[in-house]
Amino acid sequence: MKYVIGIDIGGTNIKIGAVTLDGKIISYIAKKSRIFKDKKSAIKNLIQSVESVKKSLKENTLIGVGIGIAGTVLADRGIVYQSPNIPELEGIDIRKELSAKVSYPFFIDNDANVFALGEGWLGNAKGYKDFCCITLGTGVGGGIVIDNRIVHGFDGTAGEVGHIIVEPEGAPCKCGGRGCLEAYASSTGLIRMAKQGFKTEKATALRKSCKDNAKNMSPEIIAKLARNGDVFCRGLFKKVGHYLGIAMTDLVNLLNLELIVVGGGLSNAGDLFLETAKKEMQKRSLKVPGKRIKIVTACCEEAGVVGAAHIALKGIRAL
Amino acid sequence: MKYVIGIDIGGTNIKIGAVTLDGKIISYIAKKSRIFKDKKSAIKNLIQSVESVKKSLKENTLIGVGIGIAGTVLADRGIVYQSPNIPELEGIDIRKELSAKVSYPFFIDNDANVFALGEGWLGNAKGYKDFCCITLGTGVGGGIVIDNRIVHGFDGTAGEVGHIIVEPEGAPCKCGGRGCLEAYASSTGLIRMAKQGFKTEKATALRKSCKDNAKNMSPEIIAKLARNGDVFCRGLFKKVGHYLGIAMTDLVNLLNLELIVVGGGLSNAGDLFLETAKKEMQKRSLKVPGKRIKIVTACCEEAGVVGAAHIALKGIRAL
Repeated sequence: MKYVIGIDIGGTNIKIGAVTLDGKIISYIAKKSRIFKDKKSAIKNLIQSVESVKKSLKENTLIGVGIGIAGTVLADRGIVYQSPNIPELEGIDIRKELSAKVSYPFFIDNDANVFALGEGWLGNAKGYKDFCCITLGTGVGGGIVIDNRIVHGFDGTAGEVGHIIVEPEGAPCKCGGRGCLEAYASSTGLIRMAKQGFKTEKATALRKSCKDNAKNMSPEIIAKLARNGDVFCRGLFKKVGHYLGIAMTDLVNLLNLELIVVGGGLSNAGDLFLETAKKEMQKRSLKVPGKRIKIVTACCEEAGVVGAAHIALKGIRAL
Repeated sequence: MKYVIGIDIGGTNIKIGAVTLDGKIISYIAKKSRIFKDKKSAIKNLIQSVESVKKSLKENTLIGVGIGIAGTVLADRGIVYQSPNIPELEGIDIRKELSAKVSYPFFIDNDANVFALGEGWLGNAKGYKDFCCITLGTGVGGGIVIDNRIVHGFDGTAGEVGHIIVEPEGAPCKCGGRGCLEAYASSTGLIRMAKQGFKTEKATALRKSCKDNAKNMSPEIIAKLARNGDVFCRGLFKKVGHYLGIAMTDLVNLLNLELIVVGGGLSNAGDLFLETAKKEMQKRSLKVPGKRIKIVTACCEEAGVVGAAHIALKGIRAL
């Protein structure tokens, strides 16, 4: 039996799994991406992770590694061009660096593309041919599938749903733009919006939960308060939903998709914003594509690992 | 020698041409689309137009007809589902209606898709594989080409660039939404914005040119004044450019295209807004796709007719 390793590198977590050729994860580890100190430590750490997962496999059964990385990835060339949430990887020819150290082939792509491939292969998008995965995490990623194929665009950077403009004169975005979806519907966007009201009376409960220190805020704390009925925290998630619905409208009108899959850490609070997003999208979108679209949450947080395994398998077959 | 007829039906004009199999227009007529009074007169008129162009051809040389129509067209099924700018065609199974009356095969698609095919076949997008055509006319249409193929989406309604949201709480759009590109960067959008300031002092020159009657306004009059330095009219076109730039940013970030082709009647005033649009897009878009994209104007106003001929040729080959 042969295996591939799938690695999903987000702004907060790294997930690594050994995966069978039909997509079953047989061993899995997760760690924080802030263990990367600089380029060198990032490469070293990735190799250590691969080696540690490899130990769970019989000798000579590992045939390749696929990696999904949050940021602008030039997939064909194996280069991480821009990664605001994992700056340690920015500018790295990651395929070359890793291939120099170990003997199996490496393949990379954007983390949201890889997530979409995982959802399409074995997750909630299985059987759909036109869909988009939106990952709401530290940032907001997207993977667009049209006619069963990931849309890479000319340089391989397509799918940046997080940089759909949802509030033209709105908050500055890490990308250098303004009013991008990512500035509102990501963990960092949520925290940013919470900070704006943190010192006001309406945030009393939130302040209490954070021991009066805005640095202690987390999406989990805000979600817990929102579920308990706190008006301020509920309002923050309504904003997330409002802006997500605007971005979804653009996707629906532009691409007439069958399905949007919403994943990423923040989607664990989907009960607090997905209905708002759907209503906003239904209100705004064109009749036919608005009626067509279904919105679902991701199958599981391992979809990225499974998708990363998928790019390795596809890559190996094409070698 | 064989020919196809290409028909391009926009909100203002209908253009009809007899086209050779390698894309040369050998006869061409244009008329106003407001000659359509109702469904029946629209069908009758279209057939008359085909017959009149057919007269310029030798007997038995016409092999098919392709039609591009402004609106939501279910291309596979030959149905015009939604057409805010040509309501007389709405709900018509146009392929069935026309095929019942004449003996050659008919093929339809959205007018902007057809325009994109024309630009890609023989126009300014020739040789590009990932591009989008934006038609700024009575409304705003779009045709997206990825990997040399039109993106139709699940129902065939994809490419609605005019319904990218560029000002979430902005002007109501004919589609039922709000703040769509079409509400700003179309002839009707331009006139709407001009009306808002028409009674103020800053519109003095415009009022004079229109004999103090807002109904006399046209994009041509506004463009003429803008070129003569009128601040109010220049400002209107700056707004067109501003919003077009926001929509272009979404396209660039989402699809990492090589090229955007801007056509349609309003693009005749491209000198007054395209630079603004480019700057806005460059300021807002992600580094790699923002650097990649080229913006050009359409080759010619016949691109729609050539593209309509193209869908007829493709359709016939697939029969």
